[in-house]
Amino acid sequence: MTEEVYDLAIVGGGPAGMSAAVNARARNKDVVIFESGQLVSKVDISPHIRNYLGFSDITGPELAEKFISHIEDENIPVINEKVVKAYPMGDKVMLTTNSENYEAKKLILTVGVNQKAEIDGEADYVGKGVSYCATCDGKLYEGQDVIVISESAHHEEEANFLADVCDTVYYVPQYDEIEHLDDRIDIIEGNPEEIKGEDTVNKVQLDTGEYEVAAAFILRDSVPPSEVVPGLELDGLHIKIDENYETSVDGVYAAGDCAGEPWQLAKAVGEGQLAALKAIRELDK
Amino acid sequence: MTEEVYDLAIVGGGPAGMSAAVNARARNKDVVIFESGQLVSKVDISPHIRNYLGFSDITGPELAEKFISHIEDENIPVINEKVVKAYPMGDKVMLTTNSENYEAKKLILTVGVNQKAEIDGEADYVGKGVSYCATCDGKLYEGQDVIVISESAHHEEEANFLADVCDTVYYVPQYDEIEHLDDRIDIIEGNPEEIKGEDTVNKVQLDTGEYEVAAAFILRDSVPPSEVVPGLELDGLHIKIDENYETSVDGVYAAGDCAGEPWQLAKAVGEGQLAALKAIRELDK
Repeated sequence: MTEEVYDLAIVGGGPAGMSAAVNARARNKDVVIFESGQLVSKVDISPHIRNYLGFSDITGPELAEKFISHIEDENIPVINEKVVKAYPMGDKVMLTTNSENYEAKKLILTVGVNQKAEIDGEADYVGKGVSYCATCDGKLYEGQDVIVISESAHHEEEANFLADVCDTVYYVPQYDEIEHLDDRIDIIEGNPEEIKGEDTVNKVQLDTGEYEVAAAFILRDSVPPSEVVPGLELDGLHIKIDENYETSVDGVYAAGDCAGEPWQLAKAVGEGQLAALKAIRELDK
Repeated sequence: MTEEVYDLAIVGGGPAGMSAAVNARARNKDVVIFESGQLVSKVDISPHIRNYLGFSDITGPELAEKFISHIEDENIPVINEKVVKAYPMGDKVMLTTNSENYEAKKLILTVGVNQKAEIDGEADYVGKGVSYCATCDGKLYEGQDVIVISESAHHEEEANFLADVCDTVYYVPQYDEIEHLDDRIDIIEGNPEEIKGEDTVNKVQLDTGEYEVAAAFILRDSVPPSEVVPGLELDGLHIKIDENYETSVDGVYAAGDCAGEPWQLAKAVGEGQLAALKAIRELDK
């Protein structure tokens, strides 16, 4: 556990999260962003953006760079760890990442939306063989065979942890270049089709074959928010919020794409500001 | 009446209106901004702004310039006339300014909030001697004495119109430099305290004296929105909107400060985008 208690923790380094952060900083709050992947990754892949007021014709990478400079100029720390659990405890929110624990007075979720469909069977076996954090749950499958479905190279470190603990580790990369995977791990080409089991997971079907495993680790940049925050109510794909941007869980706010359509940059920036101001107002009461 | 029917008319050239405009333009809509005063005037007077994502430390005038460049680059027309009346007619919205009539398919109000209190008695005599448009109503007071309370030099043209029509025209500037006022007009130093009358206005009390007049023309950059749009419902200081940013009047939307607190830049920009997208969705049905 780190000793610092942040005023405000933000999970997700997209426009909503960054806007929340610069607004909290402008009010002298101690704020931190958690982002396990790349900052502003969705803006970064846009060819150009002409509908964010103030930049009349800018490429995605240029605008991403402006956003990143802004939070750097404000000295806002970005912690490159994946938040796997967050829950209120007393008047704080406790956060667990794949490697550390943190505390904050308020939490804003700006995790975006996962536009890729989840895998068939995934939701049925969460906590019963489906896990989103290898370092958290790997030891439960000591000496057993497991499979890892991984969406990017920066999850390889987590898979390497499994190589020390489990028997066979199958690794199914959903990206091109393997970077630093432990050579005890079996790399499998293919796309996941279904997670099967009875009480718990026992097989994972890929389009290239079927694997008998005790667990499926699904490593994406963000864990489904309802898994991260127990009791978080959803409204379809989105996190349910009230007029103050607060979710169904005390002290936990949401803004941006994860809080509703349209999935648009200026809307996300505006909502990030609003969620920060609402959270700060509660903080200062 | 101009012949063009705009897809979208926006009343108010602040951040919300400009954001609505660039978003409508990004969807190839024919959009126009009405602003009788200065564009982005509230941003322009901020010493510096550090909480609008993408600009880490920028002065108000610099940011205002960026916003203005953006709408210029998108070739968005700005009509420098004051909208005094707007009402739906069939599937269009008719707009009357102090000098012309226009038509649009949808209207977004982004008029900001008037932080100055209205004058005592003002609301009681609207349409009974209190007017917000000299060129519209001046002829009603032909040969009579009138007073003009004016918040900026760019209303002097309207006051000059009264010099041709009325008998004595008292002019009470609420600003420093008179620019081009007709020399038949009596300039009076003072601040308005109360508008008095019986069925209609008969006196205006300033802190420097009392004037017997048949009408008080109150010339501000924006006319109270409930005067502009008949039937517009308010919620305290703000225009009441639903979850689609639509007001109580068909085809009329609102966004930014005029639609609710907090009065913040990023919130206004986000809401401008949302109101434009909602209005366009209706347009394209």
